[in-house]
Amino acid sequence: MMIVVMKSDATIKQVSAVIKKVEELGFVPHLSQGEERTTIGVVGNERRVDPQVFMVLPGVEDVLPILKPFKLASRDFKKESTVVALNGIRIGAKEIVVMAGPCAVESEEQMLTVAEAVKKAGAKILRGGAFKPRTSPYSFQGLGKAGLEILKTAREHTGLAIVTEVISPRDVDLVASYTDILQIGARNMQNFALLEAAGKTTTPVFLKRGMMSTVEELLMSAEYILSNGNGKVILCERGIRSFEKYTRNTLDISAVPVIKKLCHLPVIVDPSHATGQADLVGPVAKSAVAAGADGLMIEVHPDPEHAMSDGAQSLRPAEFAELMTELRQIAHAVGRSL
Amino acid sequence: MMIVVMKSDATIKQVSAVIKKVEELGFVPHLSQGEERTTIGVVGNERRVDPQVFMVLPGVEDVLPILKPFKLASRDFKKESTVVALNGIRIGAKEIVVMAGPCAVESEEQMLTVAEAVKKAGAKILRGGAFKPRTSPYSFQGLGKAGLEILKTAREHTGLAIVTEVISPRDVDLVASYTDILQIGARNMQNFALLEAAGKTTTPVFLKRGMMSTVEELLMSAEYILSNGNGKVILCERGIRSFEKYTRNTLDISAVPVIKKLCHLPVIVDPSHATGQADLVGPVAKSAVAAGADGLMIEVHPDPEHAMSDGAQSLRPAEFAELMTELRQIAHAVGRSL
Amino acid sequence: MMIVVMKSDATIKQVSAVIKKVEELGFVPHLSQGEERTTIGVVGNERRVDPQVFMVLPGVEDVLPILKPFKLASRDFKKESTVVALNGIRIGAKEIVVMAGPCAVESEEQMLTVAEAVKKAGAKILRGGAFKPRTSPYSFQGLGKAGLEILKTAREHTGLAIVTEVISPRDVDLVASYTDILQIGARNMQNFALLEAAGKTTTPVFLKRGMMSTVEELLMSAEYILSNGNGKVILCERGIRSFEKYTRNTLDISAVPVIKKLCHLPVIVDPSHATGQADLVGPVAKSAVAAGADGLMIEVHPDPEHAMSDGAQSLRPAEFAELMTELRQIAHAVGRSL
Amino acid sequence: MMIVVMKSDATIKQVSAVIKKVEELGFVPHLSQGEERTTIGVVGNERRVDPQVFMVLPGVEDVLPILKPFKLASRDFKKESTVVALNGIRIGAKEIVVMAGPCAVESEEQMLTVAEAVKKAGAKILRGGAFKPRTSPYSFQGLGKAGLEILKTAREHTGLAIVTEVISPRDVDLVASYTDILQIGARNMQNFALLEAAGKTTTPVFLKRGMMSTVEELLMSAEYILSNGNGKVILCERGIRSFEKYTRNTLDISAVPVIKKLCHLPVIVDPSHATGQADLVGPVAKSAVAAGADGLMIEVHPDPEHAMSDGAQSLRPAEFAELMTELRQIAHAVGRSL
Repeated sequence: MMIVVMKSDATIKQVSAVIKKVEELGFVPHLSQGEERTTIGVVGNERRVDPQVFMVLPGVEDVLPILKPFKLASRDFKKESTVVALNGIRIGAKEIVVMAGPCAVESEEQMLTVAEAVKKAGAKILRGGAFKPRTSPYSFQGLGKAGLEILKTAREHTGLAIVTEVISPRDVDLVASYTDILQIGARNMQNFALLEAAGKTTTPVFLKRGMMSTVEELLMSAEYILSNGNGKVILCERGIRSFEKYTRNTLDISAVPVIKKLCHLPVIVDPSHATGQADLVGPVAKSAVAAGADGLMIEVHPDPEHAMSDGAQSLRPAEFAELMTELRQIAHAVGRSL
Repeated sequence: MMIVVMKSDATIKQVSAVIKKVEELGFVPHLSQGEERTTIGVVGNERRVDPQVFMVLPGVEDVLPILKPFKLASRDFKKESTVVALNGIRIGAKEIVVMAGPCAVESEEQMLTVAEAVKKAGAKILRGGAFKPRTSPYSFQGLGKAGLEILKTAREHTGLAIVTEVISPRDVDLVASYTDILQIGARNMQNFALLEAAGKTTTPVFLKRGMMSTVEELLMSAEYILSNGNGKVILCERGIRSFEKYTRNTLDISAVPVIKKLCHLPVIVDPSHATGQADLVGPVAKSAVAAGADGLMIEVHPDPEHAMSDGAQSLRPAEFAELMTELRQIAHAVGRSL
Repeated sequence: MMIVVMKSDATIKQVSAVIKKVEELGFVPHLSQGEERTTIGVVGNERRVDPQVFMVLPGVEDVLPILKPFKLASRDFKKESTVVALNGIRIGAKEIVVMAGPCAVESEEQMLTVAEAVKKAGAKILRGGAFKPRTSPYSFQGLGKAGLEILKTAREHTGLAIVTEVISPRDVDLVASYTDILQIGARNMQNFALLEAAGKTTTPVFLKRGMMSTVEELLMSAEYILSNGNGKVILCERGIRSFEKYTRNTLDISAVPVIKKLCHLPVIVDPSHATGQADLVGPVAKSAVAAGADGLMIEVHPDPEHAMSDGAQSLRPAEFAELMTELRQIAHAVGRSL
Repeated sequence: MMIVVMKSDATIKQVSAVIKKVEELGFVPHLSQGEERTTIGVVGNERRVDPQVFMVLPGVEDVLPILKPFKLASRDFKKESTVVALNGIRIGAKEIVVMAGPCAVESEEQMLTVAEAVKKAGAKILRGGAFKPRTSPYSFQGLGKAGLEILKTAREHTGLAIVTEVISPRDVDLVASYTDILQIGARNMQNFALLEAAGKTTTPVFLKRGMMSTVEELLMSAEYILSNGNGKVILCERGIRSFEKYTRNTLDISAVPVIKKLCHLPVIVDPSHATGQADLVGPVAKSAVAAGADGLMIEVHPDPEHAMSDGAQSLRPAEFAELMTELRQIAHAVGRSL
């Protein structure tokens, strides 16, 4: 794959001519219009084309190969950090964005209680699973469409944006019709049919790193979404599997600066799934903000002891509010807001 | 979940009465008719029922809880080893069954060449991917339906049974209409929508262990298929991810006796994906047979240097034939045939 | 093992009587005199004794078992955090303590240059290896005693305290005669002969977690030092081995709050060995302070390109100075100083 | 490092001249006299020398660099497999050699009982720990010198050779004066001071792979022993650490053919420590022989329930005898004896 870099004074007409040429040659053009430079990605399956074909076009400054296995996701393709905007929220900008809520949508009352509480504490996005991927076929699988309705109600009451998981390509349109952000969970990070389906929507996608996946594989999965036309991808580090047994997973904190270096997409950290223990969520959340994360996803439940899933790692609303105050200090210390 | 164990002299009518009772109570009955004992699994989501309800029925000997998280997959539910029969082949019986063929279906010529060669060497099942799950969206994704047609032709020419992968719930019916065995790959081991769809067919399912999944998680994924009504599940150990970098993955040889101990389903080992190197396939294949595996899946390609995927780990037909001769010795040494 | 908890108004004489009783019974007493309570650990090899033997003694409030496998290292034995004091530095107190310097001592000039620079930037302790444990017998093994002399000179010039590694029980006394802190490296974390030898000195010990050791094993190794009589142990998280290949190791950031919860000893983080890349050291160092670490160990080299070992992960003095300024902000945000 | 390959008709005098030249230049010569060719390794710390210096000497056929990080351990240095001979036993030859015995030496009676039993079943070497490296300072640490005396008695009674562990450089001479083979355990695989001390003896060394070490690191540790002058090194795969929790460790079966390919030293497999469960030892032992291992180390205890360590993974003498019969079948199937 190559990128065609336009001169800083290139005209719209010249850009269009390049795009047309890319299409004529049977490739898919991907336009990236940054403040500093406009580039056009030339995407196609492994087939080769002579760079000279583009070099001779007016307004073209350079034609560069992208050597990394991920292309549209790489900083080589797009130098400027991507900001995913939705409902007046800007993920990837100066402000740290916090997503909070219970693991699973259990009832309207539960969701409204949590939604009010996390909003008051400063969260901008409400999380809650309606379709739950569970290791056992006999465990609670989520409320399904009824859960989506409850999320919709919570959004109407609070104005919070919504993020919820989709676990099958078949449900992508349904879930996208309710939610502001489609979540693809860790177990589905390499469910390529699901990635493609999400890539064909215009809804922002929240892509969690598989517990068994390298950073490079995460970026390759993002590439599936991007190359299908959806540029609004938010990445999430949520802990990987290691030999250490004290925590549920091992949060790979270095993944935050690594991804920021290799890739222009925003990065969120989920300390709840990473640690599996409520009393570790705070310290780990703080470390994530200090390391440069663009946001956090934190599990909050009004009554963790009776949660239908993941109670042990959920904060109570009061604990969450206190943590938000502490996180604000860290955010300021690294030149950000919350 | 519980199992109802029938007396050895229980009548069909008594068994039917138990099944009817299970259904009346809103549970799903799963019948296991072994040579030594007949049992009925009482499956339902976490709800409880008093064992006495079944104990009082005529012909019932005992009602036992299954404490393991996997139920229908466990030896507690079914003591005798399951034999999956198809096309006159019996997987899980005395004979070691070998599945062989290229990673991907590339052309009819390629498949017919390989099919003839592996048949001659003693393989019973032809493998070849028509739908390929690839880390990169720009890599060869398989020939799709055209690949299925080629597999069908190869079966007609050779009489070999066919195993091929399905990567989306949407394609399950299509692939099942062509293949003798539906393969669910390592990356999809926890794609629960796919497991459910496969569980609703009557086609045998070849389920590969995820590269960072525990044996227990593999058995839980098998449980998804079994609890949806499809009892013909074949498990596959294909290497897990570790820190060792010399091999592509680390074959967990102990998983073979561990699974045989916990679970009644047949176990196949894939030394090609485990090692990633052709010259290691032989020693590892032999170790698998010695450890008690019921079969092997081995990649064979007529021209590994030019394979569209996984060439480095593919054997040439002549190497495969030689290995089969060596494997026969090991099979005999552990009281089996090949 | 048990701990005898004394009443808050117990006399010194009563404490002495308990200690005497412990010794009479063939156990080793370990005294912990906190501000709130005085406890005596009763340590011996798996042998049992009736708690009543101590309950009846005057001044004794309670006798409690310690159920965790680590005893003297646990918060059950000692509730208050341990502060290791040396050269006017207090590790484990409010101030974040930074150890900095090159991987290996290469020359006097190199050490003096680095020592002046890191001191100016705010480091309190100078690191540098004189005995280097190297994977290859053909790699530079350190300057040995000559390296210790150089460290001594650097201390005299700058007033910085010194930390340097010891790799054999035979060298413990020699190294202890030069250094303020004995370092036991990751590869030697379970070199029990070395732990015992260090436990018999009175020099503070800096114990690094093995790259594939659990937190529990780290605490068990600390227990070897503590039970041999040396209570001045400082723990270090320096990254564990995982499947992720982008970084040299995977820093287990959760280990910081986990250790602080289970254990009273100070915890230091080494972002240089964890990441293996200079440009990741800053973000990871910040995350460690935010997560509650008591200090950092950072590699600094005047000329990383020509370092004899670990150049790729070393900061230049100017980069280090800039990082220290940023770290100060984070320290303040979590109520600490630097 | 380089190797000087002599012509097939080179004279002893010509070989001596090369060795003298190597020494004159300040390098250490390592002679390898195979049936097919004689080579001289030129070993020195990273310093370079012009190959021409040796090419011009009479009898020299070629001078080759060894590019792998391990040199004397590599097949590049020595093509023929090394056979370590002791007490009439040849490890690395056609016969599979079995080492058996309890984890720890507990008493003379225990050792004599086990020794007689394993000898009768066909074992050639008796194992038993006198110095035990234990995670906890409070666990049984072995009988020390008294344990060595018991091993000596058992050897006198049965004629079996002895293998026992040494855990400190200080004890190397003592243990070597009793044992036929010095064992260096997994936790000490990178205890370089211990490796050097063992490398300076003439006693064969049994080097276990660290549970956190790659194959390459194992070979580098062997290189420490070889480069110190002791060529009698036997390698052992005993399971590595992974995320799988069912077994104590994950036996890396592929390591057997990998090591045989890269290195000329014999390879032994320890299924007892790898699995941690007696009922898995048999299948895994068989897999090791099938994969090409030169021998096995198996824990046998007369009364596993009351063993002072590792009882759960120990076979009873009768179980061991039965396994030996089964192993003999596998050995024959791969062209070896037992």
